[in-house]
Amino acid sequence: IKVDHFGFNIDRTFKQRYLIADNYWKEDGGSVLFYTGNEGDIIWFCNNTGFMWDIAEEMKAMLVFAEHRYYGESLPFGADSFSDSRHLNFLTTEQALADFAKLIKYLKRTIPGARNQPVIALGGSYGGMLAAWFRMKYPHLVVGALASSAPIWQFNDLVPCDVFMKIVTTDFSQSGPNCSESIRRSWDAINRLAKKGPGLRWLSEALHLCTPLTKLQDVQHLKDWIAETWVNLAMVDYPYESNFLQPLPAWPVKVVCQYFKYSNVPDTLLLRNIFQALNVYYNYSGQAKCLNVSETATSSLGVQGWSYQACTEMVMPTCSDGVDDMFEPHSWNMKEYSDDCFKQWGVRPRPSWIPTMYGGKNISSHTNIIFSNGELDPWSGGGVTKDITDTLLAIVIPNGAHHLDLRASNALDPVSVQLTRSLEVKYMKQWVTDFYVRLRKMN
Amino acid sequence: IKVDHFGFNIDRTFKQRYLIADNYWKEDGGSVLFYTGNEGDIIWFCNNTGFMWDIAEEMKAMLVFAEHRYYGESLPFGADSFSDSRHLNFLTTEQALADFAKLIKYLKRTIPGARNQPVIALGGSYGGMLAAWFRMKYPHLVVGALASSAPIWQFNDLVPCDVFMKIVTTDFSQSGPNCSESIRRSWDAINRLAKKGPGLRWLSEALHLCTPLTKLQDVQHLKDWIAETWVNLAMVDYPYESNFLQPLPAWPVKVVCQYFKYSNVPDTLLLRNIFQALNVYYNYSGQAKCLNVSETATSSLGVQGWSYQACTEMVMPTCSDGVDDMFEPHSWNMKEYSDDCFKQWGVRPRPSWIPTMYGGKNISSHTNIIFSNGELDPWSGGGVTKDITDTLLAIVIPNGAHHLDLRASNALDPVSVQLTRSLEVKYMKQWVTDFYVRLRKMN
Repeated sequence: IKVDHFGFNIDRTFKQRYLIADNYWKEDGGSVLFYTGNEGDIIWFCNNTGFMWDIAEEMKAMLVFAEHRYYGESLPFGADSFSDSRHLNFLTTEQALADFAKLIKYLKRTIPGARNQPVIALGGSYGGMLAAWFRMKYPHLVVGALASSAPIWQFNDLVPCDVFMKIVTTDFSQSGPNCSESIRRSWDAINRLAKKGPGLRWLSEALHLCTPLTKLQDVQHLKDWIAETWVNLAMVDYPYESNFLQPLPAWPVKVVCQYFKYSNVPDTLLLRNIFQALNVYYNYSGQAKCLNVSETATSSLGVQGWSYQACTEMVMPTCSDGVDDMFEPHSWNMKEYSDDCFKQWGVRPRPSWIPTMYGGKNISSHTNIIFSNGELDPWSGGGVTKDITDTLLAIVIPNGAHHLDLRASNALDPVSVQLTRSLEVKYMKQWVTDFYVRLRKMN
Repeated sequence: IKVDHFGFNIDRTFKQRYLIADNYWKEDGGSVLFYTGNEGDIIWFCNNTGFMWDIAEEMKAMLVFAEHRYYGESLPFGADSFSDSRHLNFLTTEQALADFAKLIKYLKRTIPGARNQPVIALGGSYGGMLAAWFRMKYPHLVVGALASSAPIWQFNDLVPCDVFMKIVTTDFSQSGPNCSESIRRSWDAINRLAKKGPGLRWLSEALHLCTPLTKLQDVQHLKDWIAETWVNLAMVDYPYESNFLQPLPAWPVKVVCQYFKYSNVPDTLLLRNIFQALNVYYNYSGQAKCLNVSETATSSLGVQGWSYQACTEMVMPTCSDGVDDMFEPHSWNMKEYSDDCFKQWGVRPRPSWIPTMYGGKNISSHTNIIFSNGELDPWSGGGVTKDITDTLLAIVIPNGAHHLDLRASNALDPVSVQLTRSLEVKYMKQWVTDFYVRLRKMN
């Protein structure tokens, strides 16, 4: 596939990886379910999108999982892909969508029987945004899109920047008494302990850090890492044992909150409890000997690529005030953010570009997109949670975390997500039916 | 405006020219008519789009004419813009549409009163394609588009390649007896004459060429130039004296055809008649002392830029067979075309890209686009001439040439174009009304 769909000076191509499964596919009346891959190895997304496998038979569907350029094995310049901003220049949503378009055209051309079949785009999180945007920009290639946990409005000033951290906080405060309060208190506790003579050593030992803290800057890094851990826990607060970002117990936020039951415990005890809580996330398997502050999630995610995307198009402002949320106050500073990006990647973000390109809140002229969001998911704050028209639909899953609906069906699934999935299938089947009705009319 | 909207490595900007007229603009209930500039100087398009000026008062409209990058004064790299494929790399439809999007956002931000007004895209020819594509890709920025004489299907194999030359031929055969037959005979007459001893000199003198023919290759060039003249005449076969590509009399094809009334005239007389006919196109003013085979149209068109675009995205296949049309047989040879492009610009065309990007014939999910085509216009063969849905409308103007409807109203206008214009205004007003109804509902 072309490295640059939007310019002709560079004619270089690269290999895009995609996975395909046609066990349940029927030529007659079938469909193609097309996963618009996001920022990671496509095999990992494939293994975490059991919903598509669960409905393949009912939809008579061929499953396709397309890997996003610059992730997994789909590297436009091989090992050099991340070497500088020149090589990274082709990592954009527009290029990724064009990859998907070309892949669909290629599959239709080469797979007999797929040519006159409807394609549906599906994706979760960033992949959900891509699914929605793909339907908006290439409606001739997909009859509809299921965009799960897709925060398409977490850009510019489309939603308040504090909405994300508020939802994380609500998850924790609803998962146990004193839980969010204890965490809110912990930041100052860390600051107090760090200031004491042997404080850094004590903290390093209490938290079983692999690399001991040696200077005050390390403390800020430590707090960022802990905060990100709480965020991740809120995202993957699934009702059953799972292994998405990390291996975790059922309802992990509840498990974490058990360590924060008591109010006003002394700083040292609070920090020991923090360690127990972190241990739930980083050491559920019991194998870890120490905690590594430079890692927060599975290595299947492409950290470098996403960091670049966040510094270019995918600028998603978040902030906290420490009052309505349990985090340290942190305002959104675009200037600082831009300078950091320039330092790291040699590029400056264009925060208003995504709304210009993809319509911001003004998307009502599009059709056939389902936006599903779990209420526990912090990303739901930037998602579409109310119907826009009768073909731009919102489904909210009260006790769902990050794209729970896309995961394989599980005996412990709440009724809400079961209903969500059956609604989604109902709409998708309608799109397929409409497609074949139109096709018959044309012939 | 950014030189590259789709990459972050090059942060360079350039100045895009646009013209604005607000004489008839009303803040209350008004609209913005936005001309999506095509391959030439925007002032020239502005002066040839009288329709917008004529309806400004009725639409309470602000008029905006946006110049297309790499044309007129909107040169991303100044004098170096055409120096090589590296500098030309940002000359694409996608970048041009993004320019328009940013300009609309900018105008809405900076002109008080324009913020909550509906914008309508209008354009003719390539500008008409851009208007239609702009509505398809940025429906959040324009409520609809008037795409006049926009051959959005003259790509790949969406229409037969011979349709264009057939329409030219029909125009000539309907404009006078023996007209297309004489022209069809003229190619062999030129070949016969060229083969004779003093043939090249005789031809040069008979046709009053500024630069005499010296070798046989010059003869092919001469024939190409004559053929292009007939094509241009068909495009601008307007019912009144006009000056679009050249100063011309009313119904110029009829005027030309008067020189071809008699059948089976000898070769030399046929060629003298060809000269008279060419003279109609190149010397209506009577000022020209000789005919220049390297020029066919106004210098307001950006020939270099268009040549590059035709060698990248805008590959519009044409062919002729000399039987159903009046031209020499000429098949469409993609390989040869691509090699020529590579020689000239160092790039290779991607003929299937435009249909992949903009949907080809499968555009029924879009809304609010009027496709108008003149039946005399050779480009109507690649245009939309039948309604697709009840909001994707086609209007055919029986005796209209290339975007006649966009020209200023004229006493000699046929009724068909008057009706077309009033229909267009009716639909545009409906879009404006719908916009304000939606706006009121939201507030």
